[in-house]
Amino acid sequence: MKELDQLTAEQFFQGIRSGDRVLMARAITLLESAAAAHRNKALEILEKCLPFSGNALRIGITGAPGVGKSSFIETLGNHIVDENKQLAVLAVDPSSKKSKGSILGDKTRMQELSKRSSVFIRPTASGEHYGGIAAATRETIVLLEAAGFDTILVETVGVGQSETAVHDITDVFVLLLIAGAGDELQGIKRGIMEMADIIAINKADGDNTERAQIALGDVRRALHLFQLKDSGWNTTVETCSALTAKGIPEMWQSIKKYHQHVVENGYFQRNRKQQYMQWFNEYLNISLINHFNQNDEFKAAFQHYSSKVEQAEMLPPVAVQALLSKVFTR
Amino acid sequence: MKELDQLTAEQFFQGIRSGDRVLMARAITLLESAAAAHRNKALEILEKCLPFSGNALRIGITGAPGVGKSSFIETLGNHIVDENKQLAVLAVDPSSKKSKGSILGDKTRMQELSKRSSVFIRPTASGEHYGGIAAATRETIVLLEAAGFDTILVETVGVGQSETAVHDITDVFVLLLIAGAGDELQGIKRGIMEMADIIAINKADGDNTERAQIALGDVRRALHLFQLKDSGWNTTVETCSALTAKGIPEMWQSIKKYHQHVVENGYFQRNRKQQYMQWFNEYLNISLINHFNQNDEFKAAFQHYSSKVEQAEMLPPVAVQALLSKVFTR
Repeated sequence: MKELDQLTAEQFFQGIRSGDRVLMARAITLLESAAAAHRNKALEILEKCLPFSGNALRIGITGAPGVGKSSFIETLGNHIVDENKQLAVLAVDPSSKKSKGSILGDKTRMQELSKRSSVFIRPTASGEHYGGIAAATRETIVLLEAAGFDTILVETVGVGQSETAVHDITDVFVLLLIAGAGDELQGIKRGIMEMADIIAINKADGDNTERAQIALGDVRRALHLFQLKDSGWNTTVETCSALTAKGIPEMWQSIKKYHQHVVENGYFQRNRKQQYMQWFNEYLNISLINHFNQNDEFKAAFQHYSSKVEQAEMLPPVAVQALLSKVFTR
Repeated sequence: MKELDQLTAEQFFQGIRSGDRVLMARAITLLESAAAAHRNKALEILEKCLPFSGNALRIGITGAPGVGKSSFIETLGNHIVDENKQLAVLAVDPSSKKSKGSILGDKTRMQELSKRSSVFIRPTASGEHYGGIAAATRETIVLLEAAGFDTILVETVGVGQSETAVHDITDVFVLLLIAGAGDELQGIKRGIMEMADIIAINKADGDNTERAQIALGDVRRALHLFQLKDSGWNTTVETCSALTAKGIPEMWQSIKKYHQHVVENGYFQRNRKQQYMQWFNEYLNISLINHFNQNDEFKAAFQHYSSKVEQAEMLPPVAVQALLSKVFTR
């Protein structure tokens, strides 16, 4: 990590602005680092990037393993780049420590796409990072925007809370499904379908075309049960095939249509502002806890009282009061 | 509020244990109070109640306005009391300040039920309370259990995040729906259907019976799309009529069956433990922020930096770092 310490924040920033891929990758490594010196430099870089950020469309993509996310991103990504877009692909993967290479790590998964010069592909750090699953990704997006990327795909495998995390940092949320065994869809994680703005039923090709069509009807019927979203957008559901590219241009059209819709009705800006306030509050909470956890006395007291609660020996508010009076009243 | 200050925590506790309704109501008022002296006494009372708490089945009930929640609770409640249960009914209503009496405040809504001696009915405080929407309700549940109530219904109107809040403090979550106009259900708030363990399609009476039956099919089909819950329980969907009581005993059977299911597979205990750890963490976060907000310098800095983020003049992690170094490095 020596090279991370030798460059100044200004040098990193200049490199990022001029599109230097090596410096960009190093800057991302820097902001994923928990070391205090790295963290300070990372924040300095981010501060410089802020005025040049915010201009990309941030697209979240999720789906269970096996729905063909990487082929979908490969095909959709190539289509996007053909429109002269500068595309970055990130992944939020809380499981990556366990199953290395499960997403994005294996470049062969997006062979065509990774060769194109206007594309940047990068997995991001796991849940260990300062500030939760998506904190490093949030910061990476700011860097990428300052580097001139105008379209950012954020992929998640959907482990734990990762979809919610990705939903909370993107402008539009795309859910990939496939027709499952019989005429039903495979299990969809609870709450995910309702977060989706765009639903793509993938693998609508060959023998599977008809089943995908049935799944399309099932999902559309299910969506009828739900309220209109705050964005005023009616979730679209379409079939597509990442293999044959059938339906992929239409998917991109839907994403752009959504974008236009929410920019025009003001939801886009409102949602971004809310996301940043949420980011601020979450980061403050974690930072306060982290700040105190550097203090051995607090740390010991925290562990003591949290285990008292776990053992059902103390009620949470009583434990918190005891913890705080132990720490703050001397 | 003088009487709140005159009694000791021990006197409150004795009153609660002996089933004194007046003291119970006063103790709840005490724990809803934001005054530091009241808060300390409330925590003392809670501490004494802890060993006698935890034995009730905590049932969350939600549904949009107009689905007949109060009649449902009246009919179900009477059925429960007929089984010699000690029943308490609480309400979490973040909107109660605006529309006074919108839930539970108006006793006439549950006329029969409120007359029965083994029933305690009480609306709880709004979102202003120390610790969020449901904090006072969580604490009230502990008091009620120490007072011997074995069945606790927690009602919510479903404003803002109130369903999630109620879901997070109860053992089983019941969603009330009605057949809407045409053959579709009325809009269901996003994410709510997936939290439900038991879905009751109410007002299945008279002319509405057939429409309720159609709605039943719609909801069951929609549920097929979702994964099995962590509890291993398949959400049940049945019709009922709070007016004629048809289907209400079956609803109570389903609740009891769910309870047995999750106790046997260990989910009940695991879920309770998780809820208490979540309560601890939420309460700690809010208490830390509250603690610092008593400090004028922190408060001013918090407002300064949070508005910088809101104006998009600072990135959240940069703003938080600036805030913390302002507050902690002198």
